[in-house]
Amino acid sequence: MNTNDYDILREVKTDSEAVFDGALLHVRLDKVRLPNGAPAGRELIRHVGAVAVVPLLDDGRVIVERQFRYPIDAVITEIPAGKLDSKQEDRLEAAKRELREETGYTADNWQSIGDFHPAAAYSDENITLYLATGLNKGEQQLDADEFLLVKAVPLKELVEDVVSGRITDGKTQAAILKTALIKGITL
Amino acid sequence: MNTNDYDILREVKTDSEAVFDGALLHVRLDKVRLPNGAPAGRELIRHVGAVAVVPLLDDGRVIVERQFRYPIDAVITEIPAGKLDSKQEDRLEAAKRELREETGYTADNWQSIGDFHPAAAYSDENITLYLATGLNKGEQQLDADEFLLVKAVPLKELVEDVVSGRITDGKTQAAILKTALIKGITL
Repeated sequence: MNTNDYDILREVKTDSEAVFDGALLHVRLDKVRLPNGAPAGRELIRHVGAVAVVPLLDDGRVIVERQFRYPIDAVITEIPAGKLDSKQEDRLEAAKRELREETGYTADNWQSIGDFHPAAAYSDENITLYLATGLNKGEQQLDADEFLLVKAVPLKELVEDVVSGRITDGKTQAAILKTALIKGITL
Repeated sequence: MNTNDYDILREVKTDSEAVFDGALLHVRLDKVRLPNGAPAGRELIRHVGAVAVVPLLDDGRVIVERQFRYPIDAVITEIPAGKLDSKQEDRLEAAKRELREETGYTADNWQSIGDFHPAAAYSDENITLYLATGLNKGEQQLDADEFLLVKAVPLKELVEDVVSGRITDGKTQAAILKTALIKGITL
């Protein structure tokens, strides 16, 4: 971080109130002092954090999921992902668990491909992205209330679907395109 | 959308309650019927929608912003972006406004590069991404409570910063990498 930018631009918390405390979302209404000294309100979500995985098979296909997302009333294509069990959970261990439970796969090689802030304007959620290779197939272990379809799709096809706009899920767009650049795939 | 996947996976709303109604965030607690008939709760945010722009100069540099994001207590690098004034606002007009107000630039050429759902698990926010070229410099018109620094950074450097993990903003990762693929830039 550029310390100078931070000193010029930062907002200082003067008050904080919990306005909704759910199982998933913890919503706060804070008051801050802006860089010019004026007061302002900030609505924000505290989120436990998450992980997401690009599971890349030796043949160049990627394991993805078709999942219903209630807020947008649509079934969309996503890479495997999930919340941390707690703020303290090791992110790599969480990624291994989510991949195994949702798809049945384990992986020999794990590479972090960076963090992803989905909505830094109003959420502290941070999704750590991984590339997993050397995959081994096992048994899916979905939660009783979890419904999703698993597919294997060529990386090149996913890249085209991201660039054309057919894949709209944010973390999936970023992680698939990072993987494409790392692997030297072009349009 | 694959209609069959939707029929298999969709959840049906049985109840909906507003639990927080802020200036930015509208939080609802819904009840749904899962595909297996079991009940479940869904916490979600209704968001007005947003736009984001990759303003690409003729010399290959991109106009980006350094902005303080209160939820993560950090100054981060982002492409110009902003909320719609209303659900009905034309997204391209909103993108032109945000670019002009935040950076002073107008653009001769606008290309949609797809929609971005930052957090489809719990928000209906949809950010439409644009690539803007043929830029013309004008005067920045920030709101009184808006503080940000504008910079011009080579696209190739931004791509490296996304892939290395230095740029963590989600919409910026996706939009910069899409632009790189469209323009044939490799690592």
